Amino acid sequence: MEPVFGETERNVARSVELIEAAADRGVQLVVLPELCNTGYVFETRGEAKALAEDVPSGPSTAAWIAAVAARNLHIVGITEREGDTLYNSAVVIGPDGLVGRYRKMHLWADEALFFAPGNLGFPVFETAVGRLGVRICYDGWFPESYRLAALQGAEIVCVPTNWVPIPGQDPARAAMANTLVMAAAHTNSIFVAAADRVGTERGQPFIGQSLIVGPPGWPVAGPAGTDGEEILVARVNLADARRKRN
Amino acid sequence: MEPVFGETERNVARSVELIEAAADRGVQLVVLPELCNTGYVFETRGEAKALAEDVPSGPSTAAWIAAVAARNLHIVGITEREGDTLYNSAVVIGPDGLVGRYRKMHLWADEALFFAPGNLGFPVFETAVGRLGVRICYDGWFPESYRLAALQGAEIVCVPTNWVPIPGQDPARAAMANTLVMAAAHTNSIFVAAADRVGTERGQPFIGQSLIVGPPGWPVAGPAGTDGEEILVARVNLADARRKRN
Repeated sequence: MEPVFGETERNVARSVELIEAAADRGVQLVVLPELCNTGYVFETRGEAKALAEDVPSGPSTAAWIAAVAARNLHIVGITEREGDTLYNSAVVIGPDGLVGRYRKMHLWADEALFFAPGNLGFPVFETAVGRLGVRICYDGWFPESYRLAALQGAEIVCVPTNWVPIPGQDPARAAMANTLVMAAAHTNSIFVAAADRVGTERGQPFIGQSLIVGPPGWPVAGPAGTDGEEILVARVNLADARRKRN
Repeated sequence: MEPVFGETERNVARSVELIEAAADRGVQLVVLPELCNTGYVFETRGEAKALAEDVPSGPSTAAWIAAVAARNLHIVGITEREGDTLYNSAVVIGPDGLVGRYRKMHLWADEALFFAPGNLGFPVFETAVGRLGVRICYDGWFPESYRLAALQGAEIVCVPTNWVPIPGQDPARAAMANTLVMAAAHTNSIFVAAADRVGTERGQPFIGQSLIVGPPGWPVAGPAGTDGEEILVARVNLADARRKRN
């Protein structure tokens, strides 16, 4: 996705179009990018607070709940507000509504100015489509966070993300972020589905290259391109994640 | 290196040739493959015990100590014997003799039939050429083991290894083992120097592809080829590992 900063209604409508397009292809689990409802590059905490929403009563979560009421599961990034506290969160939604939420633990760079670190630990959600963990962007730089998911039986870890270019790094080179996803899948023998955004927001570019990786560590879909919206689809057998073979 | 099983004297002599060739090029730290003095594919514990040596009095360590007495530091893999207990160990040797030893923690497959798991924890060695950690082969499948090195201030982790092909994996593909090394370097902002063996021993092939990786996660030397002995050299500034920039 290429969210537009501050245009929550437009962004959520676009995400619903993409969710429906994926569902029409038989997809049972959709992962959207980090903070895809609001955009990412906040300049002030007030701005973040104005765009943050309660879960599940806020308009973004409500729209997604409505969109998947007759479908299967999806996961999205959202700026969450609980009283005066803001989180960089992801909601897990199924046909029956909200399954749970994950609040990003490892805040990157200026995120710490706007958000509080997650206070819900690293939950694994038992769903009809598998045991799901969620990690958001910079969480993936901490291999322990994937390990904690695997130790709780997660079969797939969904990663809403907003990957940025690394200064000094050759942009023609594959993303180091992809290397981390592959290593996490291989060392834990799990699936990882990472959905990045594309486009430039307030001068900050994002690198795309979303991918879905299987327990051996190799991509089963993607990496996607560096720009343009794209739906990556993979058909997988989550039982492969229950055999720990390394 | 391509060690020959059971021919310790020949293997150590060959390793000394390679150490001297590297030293002639100004190298200050040499990493040799796992168990490069004895070979790897033991069939019985008795066989392993007969080839195991005390440290530092055994002939392999003694030969290496002599070889580097006027040089800088190197690290090697060795089958270590302490009384009736065998370890898959690496010795760290400097110009003044034995600096320390690391005993492999994560025994892979049949190794558990021959060796006891390491009982010395994950030491970091302060040396004239930097703060060194050591991990052996399958240890690298546990990202926590690199993290424990970094948390103790290691600037470079040396990895004597005997990587084997992964069943069902396209041999033309880059080694997943390299992906794990790159992820470990990047997520900890450290150097990693992994020295694999080549050749086939008692029907077991090894995959080569040794590499040296910098804190950004990209190789600064290698990966080496899949067969043939090779010396990989990189000139690095270990201070880069002290800046944690991710």
